[in-house]
Amino acid sequence: MDSSTFEYALRLPNSLFKTNREKFFAAFKQKVTEHEKALIVFKGKDDLPVDDTDIDYSVRQESFFYYLFGVQETGCSAAIDITEEKVILFYPRFDEIYKLWMKVLSLEDVQELYPDFEVHFVDEMEEYVKDFSPSQIFINKGVNSDSGAETILPKFKWLEEHKVETELLHPILSECRVTKNPEEITILEIANKISSEAHCWTMKHCKPGVRESYLESKFKAYCMENYNCKIVPYVSICACGPNPSTLHYVVNSDILPDNTMCLIDMGHQVHCYGADITCCYPTNGKFTEKQAAIHNLVVKANRTVQNIMKPGVNWRDMHLLAEKITLEGLKELGIIKEDVDIEEALNERVGFVFQPHGLGHLIGLDTHDVGGYLPNTPTRSTKWGLKNLRTARDLEENMVITVEPGCYFIPSLIQERAVDLGIDIDKYVNLDLALEYRKEVAGVRIEDCVLITEDGVKNLTQVPRTIEQIEACMRGDDWTELPDFEI
Amino acid sequence: MDSSTFEYALRLPNSLFKTNREKFFAAFKQKVTEHEKALIVFKGKDDLPVDDTDIDYSVRQESFFYYLFGVQETGCSAAIDITEEKVILFYPRFDEIYKLWMKVLSLEDVQELYPDFEVHFVDEMEEYVKDFSPSQIFINKGVNSDSGAETILPKFKWLEEHKVETELLHPILSECRVTKNPEEITILEIANKISSEAHCWTMKHCKPGVRESYLESKFKAYCMENYNCKIVPYVSICACGPNPSTLHYVVNSDILPDNTMCLIDMGHQVHCYGADITCCYPTNGKFTEKQAAIHNLVVKANRTVQNIMKPGVNWRDMHLLAEKITLEGLKELGIIKEDVDIEEALNERVGFVFQPHGLGHLIGLDTHDVGGYLPNTPTRSTKWGLKNLRTARDLEENMVITVEPGCYFIPSLIQERAVDLGIDIDKYVNLDLALEYRKEVAGVRIEDCVLITEDGVKNLTQVPRTIEQIEACMRGDDWTELPDFEI
Repeated sequence: MDSSTFEYALRLPNSLFKTNREKFFAAFKQKVTEHEKALIVFKGKDDLPVDDTDIDYSVRQESFFYYLFGVQETGCSAAIDITEEKVILFYPRFDEIYKLWMKVLSLEDVQELYPDFEVHFVDEMEEYVKDFSPSQIFINKGVNSDSGAETILPKFKWLEEHKVETELLHPILSECRVTKNPEEITILEIANKISSEAHCWTMKHCKPGVRESYLESKFKAYCMENYNCKIVPYVSICACGPNPSTLHYVVNSDILPDNTMCLIDMGHQVHCYGADITCCYPTNGKFTEKQAAIHNLVVKANRTVQNIMKPGVNWRDMHLLAEKITLEGLKELGIIKEDVDIEEALNERVGFVFQPHGLGHLIGLDTHDVGGYLPNTPTRSTKWGLKNLRTARDLEENMVITVEPGCYFIPSLIQERAVDLGIDIDKYVNLDLALEYRKEVAGVRIEDCVLITEDGVKNLTQVPRTIEQIEACMRGDDWTELPDFEI
Repeated sequence: MDSSTFEYALRLPNSLFKTNREKFFAAFKQKVTEHEKALIVFKGKDDLPVDDTDIDYSVRQESFFYYLFGVQETGCSAAIDITEEKVILFYPRFDEIYKLWMKVLSLEDVQELYPDFEVHFVDEMEEYVKDFSPSQIFINKGVNSDSGAETILPKFKWLEEHKVETELLHPILSECRVTKNPEEITILEIANKISSEAHCWTMKHCKPGVRESYLESKFKAYCMENYNCKIVPYVSICACGPNPSTLHYVVNSDILPDNTMCLIDMGHQVHCYGADITCCYPTNGKFTEKQAAIHNLVVKANRTVQNIMKPGVNWRDMHLLAEKITLEGLKELGIIKEDVDIEEALNERVGFVFQPHGLGHLIGLDTHDVGGYLPNTPTRSTKWGLKNLRTARDLEENMVITVEPGCYFIPSLIQERAVDLGIDIDKYVNLDLALEYRKEVAGVRIEDCVLITEDGVKNLTQVPRTIEQIEACMRGDDWTELPDFEI
């Protein structure tokens, strides 16, 4: 199956989720031997009203629930009979009158949509579980290592009547999601292909005088009009002028000035499987010398890392490599002082001052996908920059991870905060020159989604990255025949 | 101030909310005489994470909070010293390190944004209230009459140490929001002007073969690219083929067939003040005879009602009038049997079978705005159709209300459900003919946002409504010089 023939507009095939489940069943049974007559119980996403009104936010299914069952509809619950490897789906029941407002499925309709499952209505769940009389019930309780927040737990009153196990499931399920099955990879390829096209489309429409939200709209409209994509996987960052150096700038309301850079961090998703891509380009389509220098530096870090990535390579090492390339480049430009020893600067965490975020993150059903830090993986560093890494794992085949080195000139960080952090900034950085650069390029991030293959990587993102490619794309010319960045 | 000179792209002026507050203070003091040294306490909207992840949904401020304070930022709380009519705003405090990710405001920045308020950080609220030592604290507890859900209550632990009054505030605040102040009206005019333009833009792009979501995208992109609008006020309904007869159809994924009608119910919002407009047109730009007949019938109901609306007119009467016009029209077409007495049919609730929703709703900060049913207003009817009305009030000057009569051919409702409801459908309806019509026009709704003036109405919505206007607009011709529907 390849991405061109994959039928995905309305929903993903049940087979994708069947494969996810098979992987999970095998992992679970290997780790948890005492599961005879056990049930695993999940609660899916409910509608999310806007405060006390009868209008709902557009929500997406909870990721673990979607991963195992492929059910997008709100209001469902599910149980897994782990011995039989059988899924029981509990679907919301609506009175006939609801047919006036929405499509109401009968149990037969639900069965047809989900032929692999035994289906019931949600109000039958308590009785079902009671009759099943499970030896124990596993629920998915755990903490997301990016947010620090706990998974949304099922809050069924009747759970109190059972022996409930809350520790074992989460690390197993999270680990399953760390590497992707072939159909998941195909979907992530499609999400990247569409997002790449949309980035090019957005780039072509960039011009001084429009608002940042104009670019946000161009991207979203491209995905929705051509590919039926209604929700993007994360809040859009469309930043120009000084804004790219604010890492989570999402206001997107400034008017694009001439002669500055845009930083556009947006992605499309195919039914929750998302892409995460950042492109940077001059608002007026033509790089200045300083803009090109910083842009090329970050592209070099991106491409160098990708060239080395393969199974077994450690992600923290890649982060340090990217920092090293950036600092070396800044030294060549005179922004890092000429007598600075780069290894020493790295150890002193000067890299953090120019890239105060991690090199990248696992991606899949969540933009910052689960499994970055688990009981069996390297722990989070306490050092600035390294502690910002969303994983410190060794790479494995079929991981999909973003590679997103950046270089930002953030006055408050360089001037004040670095001193608070104990970095002797005057020793390393030519502050005046850094601030000169900032006038033309506040920050650059070059972010691709990268699949780890048997012996290297495949870059799923295909957007213009060289100065020549970007300027050609912005002019409306064909850029795809121009060579990629060479390191 | 008129809508063409109103500066609103980034935020609404503080003066609008000051006027809202003055109205509220007067109303509160009239109703609540024992308020010496009382505080009113509100909790604003917090960020809304997607489940356990570190990605947030795009949220909007809670409407009562926004109405009184004009504060869009999440994480705020506020108190009102009712004796002094003074607002104390409590703003989130962020550590310096957050400057890397977002704009962090100092208290001086907050004060500059909100010069009418005394400003503190949220973590100072408990102490502030303790020092203030209020005689009692009022909070806004009440039930939304559209959703049946309770307002989001402040959950401060320290509230337990005070005398808290929960009954008085909600009906007073809700009543304030029922009629709009001049600046609110200007904003609603702008929202309608932009939404009207966007509907025309969408209409021009309609063609068989595209998906419903293509039209949704055209509308949203128009509002965002031209007017920086990032969130629409309600979930979009873009329905073609059989879908318009599903009232809350929001899937928007079908491909537009030739020779059917679209029903497009979408609105733009200006910082929470929204429009709600529905347009119906043939996918191929050319009405069939049956489509034109039903469309004109509903436009006639819409325009007839608007001609009669003025202060003092009862809304339930308008609903019944619209039903009457629809039933009379259906009788002329032969869909209602020729020997049917229309008054009798109205009494038997046959109108409900063809329009199973209310004629319209108050609109403002909420799409279904508050105040439809309050302790001092007519209560909800128990009869089908009439009980679907979101208000049964007499109209008042400066109310803004939607006028949205509809006519739908819903097989399950006509064939089965009507019988359940006790309606002798065979006596009234020529079922075969109704189903014939359904093939070409499953449902039509004509929805405008209408301001009640001193002696009549002003229709804030300006979209093509006659057959000639719509066909001209869809061809890309100027439709604005063509005459409006005449009744």
